[in-house]
Amino acid sequence: MTEQNETNHPGQSDACKFTLLATDAATSARRGRLDTRRGVIETPAFMPVGTQGTVKGMLPEQLLEVGAQIVLANTYHLYLRPGHERIRRLGGLHKFMHWDKPILTDSGGFQVFSLGELRKIDEQGVRFQSHLDGSAHVLTPETSIAIQESLGSDIMMVFDECIPYPAQRDYVATSTARSGRWAERSKQARRDPSAALFGIVQGGMDRDLRRQSAEQIMTIGFDGYALGGLSVGEEAALMYAVMEWTLPELPAGQPRYIMGVGTPENLVEAVARGADMFDCVMPTRNARNGVMFTSTGKLSIKQARYLDDERPIDAACHCYTCRHYSRAYLRHLYQSHEILASVLNTTHNLYYYQHLMRQMRDAIAAGTFITFRDEFYRRRSLTGEA
Amino acid sequence: MTEQNETNHPGQSDACKFTLLATDAATSARRGRLDTRRGVIETPAFMPVGTQGTVKGMLPEQLLEVGAQIVLANTYHLYLRPGHERIRRLGGLHKFMHWDKPILTDSGGFQVFSLGELRKIDEQGVRFQSHLDGSAHVLTPETSIAIQESLGSDIMMVFDECIPYPAQRDYVATSTARSGRWAERSKQARRDPSAALFGIVQGGMDRDLRRQSAEQIMTIGFDGYALGGLSVGEEAALMYAVMEWTLPELPAGQPRYIMGVGTPENLVEAVARGADMFDCVMPTRNARNGVMFTSTGKLSIKQARYLDDERPIDAACHCYTCRHYSRAYLRHLYQSHEILASVLNTTHNLYYYQHLMRQMRDAIAAGTFITFRDEFYRRRSLTGEA
Repeated sequence: MTEQNETNHPGQSDACKFTLLATDAATSARRGRLDTRRGVIETPAFMPVGTQGTVKGMLPEQLLEVGAQIVLANTYHLYLRPGHERIRRLGGLHKFMHWDKPILTDSGGFQVFSLGELRKIDEQGVRFQSHLDGSAHVLTPETSIAIQESLGSDIMMVFDECIPYPAQRDYVATSTARSGRWAERSKQARRDPSAALFGIVQGGMDRDLRRQSAEQIMTIGFDGYALGGLSVGEEAALMYAVMEWTLPELPAGQPRYIMGVGTPENLVEAVARGADMFDCVMPTRNARNGVMFTSTGKLSIKQARYLDDERPIDAACHCYTCRHYSRAYLRHLYQSHEILASVLNTTHNLYYYQHLMRQMRDAIAAGTFITFRDEFYRRRSLTGEA
Repeated sequence: MTEQNETNHPGQSDACKFTLLATDAATSARRGRLDTRRGVIETPAFMPVGTQGTVKGMLPEQLLEVGAQIVLANTYHLYLRPGHERIRRLGGLHKFMHWDKPILTDSGGFQVFSLGELRKIDEQGVRFQSHLDGSAHVLTPETSIAIQESLGSDIMMVFDECIPYPAQRDYVATSTARSGRWAERSKQARRDPSAALFGIVQGGMDRDLRRQSAEQIMTIGFDGYALGGLSVGEEAALMYAVMEWTLPELPAGQPRYIMGVGTPENLVEAVARGADMFDCVMPTRNARNGVMFTSTGKLSIKQARYLDDERPIDAACHCYTCRHYSRAYLRHLYQSHEILASVLNTTHNLYYYQHLMRQMRDAIAAGTFITFRDEFYRRRSLTGEA
C-alpha cells in the first residue's frame, strides 16, 4: 500500500465512508466498515443475491436473522419486470421489497452480455432483446445509472462488459478500454450524490490489461472498486492470480468488491488477498437444488443415505434449519418438491456464508486469520462426517 | 339437543375433553374448547392442511403467527413417503416437522378413493397403487389406525369411504353400511388411549342414510364426530341441508368436524348450523394460484390492474403480508414465479381464515353471531374496493 492510497481519493464522494479497522499481519486480509446512507456493512461482507426484488425464498426478517447486512438486486431483471419507473413511483426498491438496509445494484451489463445472440454491442451501449418477451431495448452507461437511481440503489455499479473466458487479447483490450470510457460516462450520468458509485476493473486474465484498467478506473475515481470478469470459467489459481495482480493496485482506504465470487474456498482466498465484498448466487441456487454447504464440505440432501438421518445438516451450525430439522426431514421435503425445502435449505446456506464472513472478520480483528484459514481447510479435509 | 346428548357419551375416551362454552341463541353456533394432549383448540376452529408433513410454504412459527392451533396431515401421503415407520423411528410427526401443537390425521380413505382406476374396494379394505411409483398397497381400518398411531396423531379419524356425488342410492347405502363396520374395526384397532379417535358420518346426500349413519357411528361411540362426503360437487344449499339433518343428531357435548369444507361462506354457514372444526386446502392452494381472500371477496393478484396498486391485499387485514407489502409487489412476485409469492399469499389467506374463525368465536361468546354474519355478507356485497 502506498501512502497515496491512504489518503482520500479525489473521486470518492460523500455517499459512503470506508474505515479500515484492522489489517492482517501475515496476509492482505482486511477488517473494515462501510457506512452507507442505509446502514453499516461490516467487511469482509457477503451480499445475498435478490435478482427480482427478493432473495429467493427468504423474507427480509429471515435475511437479517442469518446475518445479511446488504443485498444485491439485478438492474436488468427489475428494468424489464416490473420496470424501474414503476418501482420508483411505488416508493423505491427498499419499500417495494420491505428491506430498509443497503441495496447494491449491478449495472445490468453482466446479464445483458449473457444473452449471447440476443444482444449487440457498440460504443454507445448494448442493444438487446428481452429474455421475457423478445422486445428490443438499449442499455447504456447513462440509462443504467438512471435505472439504478430510480430503484433507489445505495451502491450503484458502473456499466461495463463482463468479458467471457477464454477471449482473444485484442478483444480483451478493446472491451476493457471501452468499459473504461463507459465508467467515465457512468460517473457523469450520476445525479444522486447520496448513492455511492463503484468502478469496475476489467482486463480479462491479462496482468497488464488488469493494471491498465485499474489505473484508468482509479483516475476517474469512485467510492469503491470492483473486480469484474472473474469466476467466468477460469481455474481458481488464475482467478487468485488476477486478484494478486490487481487488488494491491487499488486504494487501501476504499472498499474492494469481487463480483460474482464464489465458493467458500474462493471467499477465504479472496479475503486473504485483500478483498472486502462479495456476491454470488451459489448459496441460494445450490440450496434450491438440495446442495448444502457445511463446515466439512458440501452435502447433497437428495441422497438416499439421508433417509433415516436424524442429524442436522451441520452439527456445528446454529442456523434455524439446523436447530430444528433433521437431514431426513429435509430430504423428504426435497423429494416431495415442497416449498419449505427451498426456504429451509436457503436459510442454512445463507447462514453458512454469513457465518463464514463473521468468522473471518473476527479472526482478522483478533490477528488469527492464518489460524482460521488452516482450521477451515483442516475441517474440510475430514471425511465421512456428512 | 336432548338431555342424553349432554351426558358423557359412552364411547368417549379420556384422550380429549370438549367443553361447550357458549351456544348462540338465534342459531346453532357453538363456542367451545377442545383439550388434547398437545394443547387446546378453541372452537370453531380451522385446521390448515399439511399434506406431506408441511403446510406448503409455511414455517411452524408462521403458522402460529397466523393463529393456527392445529394442523391436518394426510395419512395416505405420509404412508407412501417418507413412510410412517420411518417417521415413528425418527420420533414421530411432531418432531419430524417441528410442530408441537396438535395434529389431526385423516384416515387415508379420501385420497385412496380419489385414485379412481388405481384402487379396488372390498369388505376388508382398499387395494390401491401408489400415485408415486405404481406400487401395490392395501389400506384397511386396522392399517390406517396403525399408521396414524405411528405418526403420533393427536386426533385420528376412522377409515371410511368418501362417497362421490352424484351416486346411486343403493351404492350410498352399501358404502355407508360398510363405512360403519369399518368405523367399528377402526375403534377396535386403536392401541394408544391418549390419542383421540373421531367417527365419520357418511350417507351421501340422503337424509335417512345420514341419520342411520349418525346413529350407527354414535352407537359405536367416539371422541368426536365428523361429517364426511361433503364439498364433493354438490350445491351449497344441499351441503347445508345435510348439515341441518345431521348435526342436531350428534351429541352436543362432543366436537363436530366438517371434513374438507370450505369457502369462507361455507364456514360461516356451517358454524351457524353447529359445526366446530374444519379443514380445507382452499386457502393454501388458492394462495399458490394467486387467489386471495379478503373481507370484500376474492382477489386474483395476477391481474394487470394491480401493477401499480400500492394498497395491501386487504386494508382491513393485519397479517404480515398486508402490513408490509403492496398488491403491486405481490403481483410482481407472482408473475416472476418467485417462491416468496407462495409464502406471502399463503400467509395472508391462512390469516384470513384464522381471523374469520376468531371473529366467529368472539361473536358467539358475545351473543352477536347474527350481527357478525350480517356484516360478513354486507362487506362482501360491496363492489369495487378490490
